[in-house]
Amino acid sequence: MENNALLDVIVIGAGYAGLTATRLLKETGKTVLLLEARERVGGRVYTHYIDNQLYVDLGGQWIGPTQDRIYALAREMHVNTFKTYNEGKNVILLNNQRKEYTGLIPKIDLPSLLNIDFVLKKLDRVAKQIDLQHPWKSMKAKELDSKTLASFLKENIYFSNAQKVVEAGLETLFACSPSEISLLHALFYIKSGTNLNVLLNIENGAQQDRFVGGAQLIANKLAEVLKENILLSHPVQKIKQEGNKVEVFTEKGIFLAKKVIVAVPPPMAQRIHYEPLLPAQREQLLQRMPMGTVIKCMAIYERPFWREHGYSGQAMLDEGYVQVTFDNSPFDAKYGILLGFSLADRAKQLMSFSQEERKSLVLNTFEKLFGEKALNPSYYIDKCWAEEEWSRGCYVGYMTTGAWTSLGEALAKPFGNIHWAGTETSPIWNGYIEGAIRSGERVVQEVLSA
Amino acid sequence: MENNALLDVIVIGAGYAGLTATRLLKETGKTVLLLEARERVGGRVYTHYIDNQLYVDLGGQWIGPTQDRIYALAREMHVNTFKTYNEGKNVILLNNQRKEYTGLIPKIDLPSLLNIDFVLKKLDRVAKQIDLQHPWKSMKAKELDSKTLASFLKENIYFSNAQKVVEAGLETLFACSPSEISLLHALFYIKSGTNLNVLLNIENGAQQDRFVGGAQLIANKLAEVLKENILLSHPVQKIKQEGNKVEVFTEKGIFLAKKVIVAVPPPMAQRIHYEPLLPAQREQLLQRMPMGTVIKCMAIYERPFWREHGYSGQAMLDEGYVQVTFDNSPFDAKYGILLGFSLADRAKQLMSFSQEERKSLVLNTFEKLFGEKALNPSYYIDKCWAEEEWSRGCYVGYMTTGAWTSLGEALAKPFGNIHWAGTETSPIWNGYIEGAIRSGERVVQEVLSA
Repeated sequence: MENNALLDVIVIGAGYAGLTATRLLKETGKTVLLLEARERVGGRVYTHYIDNQLYVDLGGQWIGPTQDRIYALAREMHVNTFKTYNEGKNVILLNNQRKEYTGLIPKIDLPSLLNIDFVLKKLDRVAKQIDLQHPWKSMKAKELDSKTLASFLKENIYFSNAQKVVEAGLETLFACSPSEISLLHALFYIKSGTNLNVLLNIENGAQQDRFVGGAQLIANKLAEVLKENILLSHPVQKIKQEGNKVEVFTEKGIFLAKKVIVAVPPPMAQRIHYEPLLPAQREQLLQRMPMGTVIKCMAIYERPFWREHGYSGQAMLDEGYVQVTFDNSPFDAKYGILLGFSLADRAKQLMSFSQEERKSLVLNTFEKLFGEKALNPSYYIDKCWAEEEWSRGCYVGYMTTGAWTSLGEALAKPFGNIHWAGTETSPIWNGYIEGAIRSGERVVQEVLSA
Repeated sequence: MENNALLDVIVIGAGYAGLTATRLLKETGKTVLLLEARERVGGRVYTHYIDNQLYVDLGGQWIGPTQDRIYALAREMHVNTFKTYNEGKNVILLNNQRKEYTGLIPKIDLPSLLNIDFVLKKLDRVAKQIDLQHPWKSMKAKELDSKTLASFLKENIYFSNAQKVVEAGLETLFACSPSEISLLHALFYIKSGTNLNVLLNIENGAQQDRFVGGAQLIANKLAEVLKENILLSHPVQKIKQEGNKVEVFTEKGIFLAKKVIVAVPPPMAQRIHYEPLLPAQREQLLQRMPMGTVIKCMAIYERPFWREHGYSGQAMLDEGYVQVTFDNSPFDAKYGILLGFSLADRAKQLMSFSQEERKSLVLNTFEKLFGEKALNPSYYIDKCWAEEEWSRGCYVGYMTTGAWTSLGEALAKPFGNIHWAGTETSPIWNGYIEGAIRSGERVVQEVLSA
C-alpha cells in the first residue's frame, strides 16, 4: 500500500466494527485501508493463548439469540459455537452466608425475591418506551436522563437483600455502578439488548453461546481475508481534513483517503488529534462517555472439579472483589476454568493491588464458593481493561447523566468526511459484538450514500 | 534552555496554577521550565484585545472576599481591582413576562421565593458536612454521590418559578446542568467556595471585583518575571518516566527533569501520552471529569446605555440561549459592555449555530431585557470554551456521579515523579483562579518534600 495513494476509505480500529466495515467496503470494490494500533485485531475481544493448547477469552466472549450478525459471521467463517456450561447448583454468598440453589431464583427471603421481580420488570416496562434511534426523543427523556440508575433503584427497592442482588446483577450487566450511569442510558441499553431476561440469562440469553477457539477467532479469520488491507501497530495520531481529502497521520507514515471511519472506543476517538478540531458538541459528548470498569479474573485447573460436586460454577457475592463467577472451561472441558468478574467499584479497588495480591484475593473468593481445591490452580490470569492502552476500560463507553438529552445527536453524526462506528453507536445490541458489527454495516451505508 | 540539561522541574500549563508553581520553584533556587501549548499564558483566563484600547475578558474575570492569594498577587504585581457594577434595577424574564426589581430578591410569587430560600439554605447546610480534603470520606458520601444535583432539586422544589430561578442560578455557578453533576460534587464545590451566598453574589461575593487591565494581566506580568523559564507554543505530547528522570516530549524537542508538574484541565492531562501508562484509577477518574459548557457572549456599545435608564445590566432568563447577564463595562465605563452567559444545555444548543447566528440570537435576548439600543453594538464577540483546543470546556472539570467516592483518591496522587496541579485539585475555591494558585502552592510543597 503506497503512502501517497488516495484511497476511498481508511478505517481506524480493527475491532468487529472496523473489520466489518473494511470487509463490506472491499466487497463493493472500494480501496480501503484498516489501521490498527495494536499488534492484533479484535479490539475488546481478545483470545489469549497461555500455551499452544490453552487459550482464554480475556475480553468479550458470549453471544446469544437475536444476535443474528455474529451467528451468521461465525457460520460463514466456520467457527463453531457451544453452549455455556449451565448445569448444577449455583452459589450465593450474602451477608457472609453461603447458600446453594438451582435454577434462576436465588435462595433469599421472599420479600426480597418479590422486590427483585418487581424492580426488574419495572425497568423492562419503562425501557420499552425508549426510542432506540433517538433516546433523547423518548417520553420523559429529560427526566430519565437527569437521574442515575441508583436513584431509580433507591425508589423501587425496599429490602436489603434485593438491593444487593440487583446491584451485583446490574453491575455485571453494565460494568459500572448504578451510581455512575444515567437512568435513560440504562433503559436504552436494556431495550437495545431486548430486555433484562435476555441480557442477564445464559439459556436463551446473551450468555448462551461461546466460540470454539475463542471469540477472537472470527476476527482473525476476517483479518486473514483482509490481510492486504490491514496495517497493525499503526496507532493514528492525527486526522486532517482538507477539501475532499483526509490525511491520516501515524508514526510510520501519512495515509490519504476520501473518507475516514473511526471505529474505536470513545476515549480513544477523543484522543486522536483532529484538524480542524472535533465539533464542540461531539468533543463534550465524548467527555461524558467514560468506559466501564472490569477485571476479568480466571483460574485454570486441571479439571472443572466443581462440576464433579454438582456445581455450575455460577455464583453471586455481595462482598469481596468479585461480583459473579462462571464456569469458563473450554468446550471439551479439557481444563477447568473459573471466571470471576470484578466490576465497577470493586474493580476500582482490586486494580490498586499487585498481580500477586489480586490472584490471592480472587482465589480466596473462589475457595469460599467452591472449596479448597480452588486455591491451587495451574495458572491464574486477570485482565484489567482500564490498564489497556487502546481501550482504557470495558465493556463499553456509557452515558453519564444528562449526556443523551443534551448531546446525543452528536454520537454518530459525520464530521465532514469522518464517520463514526463502534458498538457505542449501535441502537441494537449496544455494547456487544453484535452492536459493533451492526455499526460497521450502518457506517458503510452512510459512506456509500454520501 | 538546552534540551539535554537535566532540570529540577518541568511544569506543564501556564495558567495560574502552573505560573504559581514555576515562580515558587524558581524562588527556592530550582531550575524550572514551564511549557505552554498556547501562544499566551493565562489558560482559562484570557483577556482579548479588540483594539489597543478595548479589551474583554473572555475567560475567568471575577474575584471576591477570602480569595487571599489572588488579591495578594494583584497587589504585588501592581494590578488594580475595581468593583463590579452593581447599581440599579435588575430584570427577570420568566414565563415570557419581563419584570424589574432591585436588590437580591427577584419579583416572583411568594411561595417560589420561600422555596428558593429553603432549597439554597438546605444545600448550604448539607454542604457544611463535606470533608473538603477527602469528599469521599464525608458523611453519607456514597448516597450523595449516587444521585445528581437535579434529583436533589426535584425532591426539594415544589414551585415551577422556584425551579426555573434555582436552575438558572446553579447553571451559572457550575456551567453545567444540575442533571450532569454529582450532588456530592456540587456540595463540595459549594463549601469549597464558602457557601451559596458568597458564590452567587456580587457584593461580598465571588463576583465582587474585577481587574483593571483584565484578568490575564497578572499572568502576563508573572510571565514577564519568568520569561527565561517559559516556552510558549510547546504542546506536550508525551511524558516518559525512567528511573529518576522524566522526559517531556514536544514537537520542538525533548526536555528532561527530575520532576514534572502537570497543571492543565483534566481532559488535556488525559490526552498526554504517558510512558508507563497513567495508573488505571487516574485514567478512569479523568474519564469521569468532563468540562463544563459555557459561551461567554459580549456586546460592546459606545456607552453603558442601560445605566442611564437605571438598569444594573443584570438579568436572569428562563428561556433563550443565555441564562444571565451582567454589566461588564471597563472600570472607566469608557464603553458599555453587556455580558451574557450561555451555559449547560443552552450553550450546547447555541454552539451549533454560526457566529453570525449566535450574534443575532444573543442580541435579540439583550433587546428583550434592555431595549432596542441593545440591537446595535459596535462590536460583538463570544467565546465558546468547548471549541478551545487547550481547554475543551469551562469553567472547570466537574465530577459526574460516583466518581468522587470510587476514584477520588486518584485526583492529586503523584504518579512516580509526575505531580498534579490545577484548580480542579484544590479543596479551597475549586474552579476559581484562587484554587488554581493554591494548587500551585500545594504542588510545590509536595515536590520539594518528595
